[in-house]
Amino acid sequence: MDERWRRLTLAARTPGLDAAAFAAIAAATPDLELFDRPDPAALTRLGLTTDGIRWLSNPDEARLAADLRWLDESRCLLLPCTAAAYPQMLRESPDAPPLLYVRGRAECLGEPQLAMVGSRNPSAGGRATARRFAGQFAQLGLTVTSGLALGIDAACHEGALGAGGNTVAVLAHGLDDLYPREHQDLADRIAAAGALVSEFPPGVAALNHHFPRRNRIIAGLSHGTLVIEAAARSGSLITARLAGNAGREVFAIPGSIYNPLSRGCHALIRQGAKLVECPEDVLAELKISLAAQLLAAPENDAPGQPRAGGALDKAYKILLDALAFEPASVDTLIERTGLNSESIASMLLVLELDGHVAPHPGGRYSRMAGHSA
Amino acid sequence: MDERWRRLTLAARTPGLDAAAFAAIAAATPDLELFDRPDPAALTRLGLTTDGIRWLSNPDEARLAADLRWLDESRCLLLPCTAAAYPQMLRESPDAPPLLYVRGRAECLGEPQLAMVGSRNPSAGGRATARRFAGQFAQLGLTVTSGLALGIDAACHEGALGAGGNTVAVLAHGLDDLYPREHQDLADRIAAAGALVSEFPPGVAALNHHFPRRNRIIAGLSHGTLVIEAAARSGSLITARLAGNAGREVFAIPGSIYNPLSRGCHALIRQGAKLVECPEDVLAELKISLAAQLLAAPENDAPGQPRAGGALDKAYKILLDALAFEPASVDTLIERTGLNSESIASMLLVLELDGHVAPHPGGRYSRMAGHSA
Repeated sequence: MDERWRRLTLAARTPGLDAAAFAAIAAATPDLELFDRPDPAALTRLGLTTDGIRWLSNPDEARLAADLRWLDESRCLLLPCTAAAYPQMLRESPDAPPLLYVRGRAECLGEPQLAMVGSRNPSAGGRATARRFAGQFAQLGLTVTSGLALGIDAACHEGALGAGGNTVAVLAHGLDDLYPREHQDLADRIAAAGALVSEFPPGVAALNHHFPRRNRIIAGLSHGTLVIEAAARSGSLITARLAGNAGREVFAIPGSIYNPLSRGCHALIRQGAKLVECPEDVLAELKISLAAQLLAAPENDAPGQPRAGGALDKAYKILLDALAFEPASVDTLIERTGLNSESIASMLLVLELDGHVAPHPGGRYSRMAGHSA
Repeated sequence: MDERWRRLTLAARTPGLDAAAFAAIAAATPDLELFDRPDPAALTRLGLTTDGIRWLSNPDEARLAADLRWLDESRCLLLPCTAAAYPQMLRESPDAPPLLYVRGRAECLGEPQLAMVGSRNPSAGGRATARRFAGQFAQLGLTVTSGLALGIDAACHEGALGAGGNTVAVLAHGLDDLYPREHQDLADRIAAAGALVSEFPPGVAALNHHFPRRNRIIAGLSHGTLVIEAAARSGSLITARLAGNAGREVFAIPGSIYNPLSRGCHALIRQGAKLVECPEDVLAELKISLAAQLLAAPENDAPGQPRAGGALDKAYKILLDALAFEPASVDTLIERTGLNSESIASMLLVLELDGHVAPHPGGRYSRMAGHSA
């Protein structure tokens, strides 16, 4: 297992590695041994850049050792895009990150998410609206995903947490640090109830150009992006544009023409974003896309739906029943359970974290001896 | 001439008479004698209803005499849809009124108009916005058309008047009365700077079902309709819908989701109305339709454009030069001047009111002896 973690940390620091190249390498060498026995010709064929090949040929061993130590100490996951637990919505989005660092309840990433973003300097009304909407979404079983920035982002996370819901924060820097520092307590509460996510390895600072990349993950994880308050040119509009590019819904809350922080929302509405007056407006739209997704799945009792205890337990029982003691692939489990791959992936992660299931090479899983469902 | 006015007052009170039927009668009998020598078979063929034919066969002579007296005393015009001075935009709109009572400067009706409507009980902010926008439109040469109601309507008229511009008020009752009474002073100022308009004969009260009919005239006169503040179900939304049905632009100003008077505007924006943050947003859209209209006209120096004194005078001079002392039809004048029919119609009305031009039967005009251009 240590060998695999080492290869994942190597991959996570490989310049120019995208999800397609990672997946190609994982398909060619399921144990990822190509990362620490690099074959330049093979890597080039699989889509790696010269920068990436140079790094893999002569990696910074001290840094890798530090990464592994940090992963171990910080209880963070490093989730490759080929893992069943990697969120399907993000996998289907443009420019999906090849690997994600995750701190907290990684299974949240498989749940239906709504991105909520906005200004760092909102009006008092905008902040209250963000908190109220997030609380209502959380109560209805939607995970609220945002960027942990000052202002609207923080209000959205707080609103979801206050309602006892899940929330995911995507960061523009390594998970070993926190920006802004004053959100340390909020970050800890998010990690306990939800998850902190980053594509950046430990030690990487929140550089300006990281924010649009962070925003694409927020948009990519989510069924839609709701902009609460945003100035005419702002990062929130980038997130909204990325959501639109990824084929996700874009929502915006209008406001007074005398509030400069309504300009961004109004611009989005002019460009086709759905005008939102209340949380129900968002749910009405999302219901359509979620319903379409559920109809596509052969079994409705999947996790990630607004939590109905019984149904959830039933799905887990079906999955555990289907897990024999010899390793089985996700495809096999789909066949045995009738559940869809995304549901199975997030449930496997929960079961793995709870010690019910053991991962095996080649994306196979088995039930742990000595545990009962 | 008295004979013609009598026939027009007869027509104005004929139940079920629409613009098409009026135009058909005017085409069959240019002096409109069919109205006071009614031939039921001919009238039926021309589209009149039995109610209409019954009224024409046995009109209330005392009422007609009162109508004629009132027209004379009040200095109101009764403008049939076949008159050159009848506004072309309204003529092209669905269910155009066959005749319009006009008090004030009837030539305003030929100028490019923007309808501005909204709640009778606006917020202070909505009222201020209405006044400010109307002032800016008026300064830019757009005539502001509204319904003289309390609240937003009044603020729009006031804003246009305050900026020294033109404004048109369309009423839901006969022009011999005024509803609401507290707007008497405002109505007088509108009649002096612009025009009061109604399709209802004197003595007709402001019944509930007259307001949607009044609204269709507001929408029909205008290149577009801008809704400032409106509750979820309100008359302003009817005006906006009628504007849309007439193929005119619909504009709406967004507001706080906590302002119930933003609901109507937000509903319109969801249905495709243009979101407006500033007057320029409206002008940018209207410019397109006005430019298209100007390009269709063979001569750009038409009245009704944002007033450039010299150009206006030049057009009037061309028209007066083209008016010989024998009566000429509008078609002849189009040929002689290269101006379009709408421009000629509104200029003829101005010249007629100023005593430069005399009207003749059959829609012909001549220059008055003893006047020089």
